[in-house]
Amino acid sequence: MSFKEKLLLKTKDIDEKLELYLPSESEDETGIIAKAMRYSVFAGGKRLRPIILVSVAEALGGDVNKAYPFACALEMIHTYSLIHDDLPAMDNDDFRRGILTNHKVFGEDIAILAGDALLNRSFEIMSKACALNNDCSLVKAMEAIARAAGAKGMLGGQVVDVINDGKKIDEKTLRYIDKNKTAAMISGAFEAGAYIARAGEETTRLLYEAGQNIGVAFQIQDDILDVIGDFETFGKSIGSDEKNNKTTYVTMFGLEKAKEDTASLSEKAVKIFKEIGSSMDFLAELTNYLIKRNN
Amino acid sequence: MSFKEKLLLKTKDIDEKLELYLPSESEDETGIIAKAMRYSVFAGGKRLRPIILVSVAEALGGDVNKAYPFACALEMIHTYSLIHDDLPAMDNDDFRRGILTNHKVFGEDIAILAGDALLNRSFEIMSKACALNNDCSLVKAMEAIARAAGAKGMLGGQVVDVINDGKKIDEKTLRYIDKNKTAAMISGAFEAGAYIARAGEETTRLLYEAGQNIGVAFQIQDDILDVIGDFETFGKSIGSDEKNNKTTYVTMFGLEKAKEDTASLSEKAVKIFKEIGSSMDFLAELTNYLIKRNN
Repeated sequence: MSFKEKLLLKTKDIDEKLELYLPSESEDETGIIAKAMRYSVFAGGKRLRPIILVSVAEALGGDVNKAYPFACALEMIHTYSLIHDDLPAMDNDDFRRGILTNHKVFGEDIAILAGDALLNRSFEIMSKACALNNDCSLVKAMEAIARAAGAKGMLGGQVVDVINDGKKIDEKTLRYIDKNKTAAMISGAFEAGAYIARAGEETTRLLYEAGQNIGVAFQIQDDILDVIGDFETFGKSIGSDEKNNKTTYVTMFGLEKAKEDTASLSEKAVKIFKEIGSSMDFLAELTNYLIKRNN
Repeated sequence: MSFKEKLLLKTKDIDEKLELYLPSESEDETGIIAKAMRYSVFAGGKRLRPIILVSVAEALGGDVNKAYPFACALEMIHTYSLIHDDLPAMDNDDFRRGILTNHKVFGEDIAILAGDALLNRSFEIMSKACALNNDCSLVKAMEAIARAAGAKGMLGGQVVDVINDGKKIDEKTLRYIDKNKTAAMISGAFEAGAYIARAGEETTRLLYEAGQNIGVAFQIQDDILDVIGDFETFGKSIGSDEKNNKTTYVTMFGLEKAKEDTASLSEKAVKIFKEIGSSMDFLAELTNYLIKRNN
């Protein structure tokens, strides 16, 4: 099977599992919240974080069925952060992935609650999985995900991003935002996957490091696409960073260095995968695929 | 020690533990979020939910030290729900407990993120406690709390409340909101406390039921105080429900029936405590105290 076919299969797998783990739309009066949750979860995400988590668990000999609840939880947390990020009080975005943002469709109140509900649901699913399997490695995976999503991870990055909105930021701040807002949940996906497979401490640490590199590379590639991308393919407005006076890796270091650093960060990650062994080949291919992506 | 002294001691205990479990204000650039989280957590809550959880665990012979992280998590979830409830897109309240609401002090963006951070932190603390203690009863407690906070609990109640804002609602809807928005987290406190103490299935079920009765009684008492309370003591505007055309238990059934039902719901709960045994005396006293409260 080609890499592209594998990727498609894994994406389909995650979509099917998300379908199961999200509340159904017609259950009761809270149906509207299920609808709003599903709207954003099924708005066409790449499923990068869940695919990484499941692939890592699988590559290290873990049980993929134990990995799915955690993978879906990661995607729900990612989605809640996007819904809240898009709110008028935050980035005030009308479009995401080419379609209207959650609050433009459901109203601000429901969008806030749909975000809350996704975050809550993710922990409901993970707690349930831990309780059912009676497996403390799973609890460690949940803890890693909570840490990645929290004030010392993604949320911390969002906060620093928000308080610096419209301001010129220095390199340290830019690196803090990239490392936390984007990379934390990607390194969290690697770490959680490793825990689910009961990997050793050193392997877990190395994978976390690979995740950090891939996460930062992913963000820089996003900044690059904001300059050289194509609206139809990228699904977001091109040139929006420049228009909003947003400091990005590209505006700070230029397009060439941005491209070079994306490549070298990815190489570092791939080197780690090679060290661990051939079972990590899919993750190496995924890393190379990500820096060549145009959406 | 009198009931009041015991209650004061327990409140102080929870406040001290919350102090430990919340991020400190000066750690790094994310300090503002810690400040916003602390502002609302330490805005003078009654700590009802955490006190119930710890008292139940203690009464059933559980380890209170294992109970604290879950108790604090409950209070953080409760606080996040208040912060988001007060937002302009939701209830648009300027005051809560006699002081400015979170978004009036920190801005809407930080208030949204502070709420998110509290919800996330609560699960971080609980996951960590589960991982450290290697104890699956704790995982069950976390699962109970996640369920109580989620779309089939508190969040579901908030949603139905929000979509019916300004509308006349029927009895079924009113009961749904009271049962979920307010009572779910109180019954969740009882259930989680029982799990932490590894109580039997029947005791856990009975305590959950007692919690539902107390939770609904608590909400009705709140509706009563909105009519007959005193602003200084209650800390909220009096008569706001009538002004906002809000259907409450009092507007639907009248003050007398509201008082009667608060009393009979509380009696049902007290009966359950008596059945379980004298170790539950504090919880019986707490129940009687709650229906006589004026704030």
